[in-house]
Amino acid sequence: MTIAKEGPTKSNPPRRRHDEVLEAAARVFHEKGYESTSIQDIAEAVGILKGSLYYYIRSKEDLLYEIIKAVHEDALANIRFVDEMEGDPLQKMRAFVTTHLVFNAENLTRMGVFFHDFRSLSGERRATIVEARDVYDELVRRLIREGQKENVICPDIDPKSVSFAIMGSLNWIYQWYKPEGRLSANTIAEEFADLVVAALACTPAAHQPGHRSAVGVLHG
Amino acid sequence: MTIAKEGPTKSNPPRRRHDEVLEAAARVFHEKGYESTSIQDIAEAVGILKGSLYYYIRSKEDLLYEIIKAVHEDALANIRFVDEMEGDPLQKMRAFVTTHLVFNAENLTRMGVFFHDFRSLSGERRATIVEARDVYDELVRRLIREGQKENVICPDIDPKSVSFAIMGSLNWIYQWYKPEGRLSANTIAEEFADLVVAALACTPAAHQPGHRSAVGVLHG
Repeated sequence: MTIAKEGPTKSNPPRRRHDEVLEAAARVFHEKGYESTSIQDIAEAVGILKGSLYYYIRSKEDLLYEIIKAVHEDALANIRFVDEMEGDPLQKMRAFVTTHLVFNAENLTRMGVFFHDFRSLSGERRATIVEARDVYDELVRRLIREGQKENVICPDIDPKSVSFAIMGSLNWIYQWYKPEGRLSANTIAEEFADLVVAALACTPAAHQPGHRSAVGVLHG
Repeated sequence: MTIAKEGPTKSNPPRRRHDEVLEAAARVFHEKGYESTSIQDIAEAVGILKGSLYYYIRSKEDLLYEIIKAVHEDALANIRFVDEMEGDPLQKMRAFVTTHLVFNAENLTRMGVFFHDFRSLSGERRATIVEARDVYDELVRRLIREGQKENVICPDIDPKSVSFAIMGSLNWIYQWYKPEGRLSANTIAEEFADLVVAALACTPAAHQPGHRSAVGVLHG
């Protein structure tokens, strides 16, 4: 086997090539699944020789971990944005749903790898990612609890299970969203935000204990 | 290699053994991922020799397809139930959310394989499953449209994107639900149903065009 002579050059500095490698790997993992992908597949997708690939990475699992860590770090910006904004918890919830959904739509491939393939990480790395993933659920729970305290979110709601319902609807888009589809990510994000906010909102004037459980129930 | 002599016996008729094979395979696929699983792994999980396994199946992909087809056929009962029940579209939606969520919770492993590994099916089979999967989204869309006609669901809602939001929240539970957790599947199902119904409901008396988009919006 020939050890390839390619590597960083002036027109392709190492950092940029490194990002290209991550991007190509995410694409191949998403299409073929992590376990079915070989280092050779990734080298072909980047357009370099397999030997050269080892200049940028040590193993296939390193690549997977780097992809997942990077998309998580990028997504954390949505949480920081919500934490720093002015507004009541319902306004913050609307902002989070909108920004996180648009983020997911713009990072379909990487989010797909994140949700689909994190199980392939080994022990400690897997635990790190599961923990990192929890920060989204925790933000949603915190906003629900704060909204209940401030009387803008219905007190009947269980923050934990409802946080999973909300995150599920936001995360699921990697399964169905097509950028070339009828609705833009922004339009879908507004629909989802309207839905979530309508699902959560109620005020002391409107609240009757159990009123949500009384809608759409069969009588007789 | 010894060709195993095991096979259907009186105490283990072929049909029952066949179901055990499907169940064990689903468990192994869910734990290790389909691509990383070997026929040997499945034979070990069933507790029979690899050679005997070929009495029940022809290939690993056949197994995957059978698992996915079976869980889909079982889940179709939820759709038939909703189609046959009395009630307005909001009542039917509540019933669908409740039954489908409990079904998902009781079939975590098989649903995990369904969502996770259907990409590993080859061409035509994959298309069959994607089409089968669409019937859930279509039911939810139909209920939303009917509810809008009958003035129990907000006319501002886009049935298609909202159907994905609802199905996402129901399907996502394979990622987080633990049967030994704090809340029972029934309790979570009621929470989700309250949430979905609250998110969709509105009446001509309460409706103002755009009212949902006005909640939780930052002013100033």
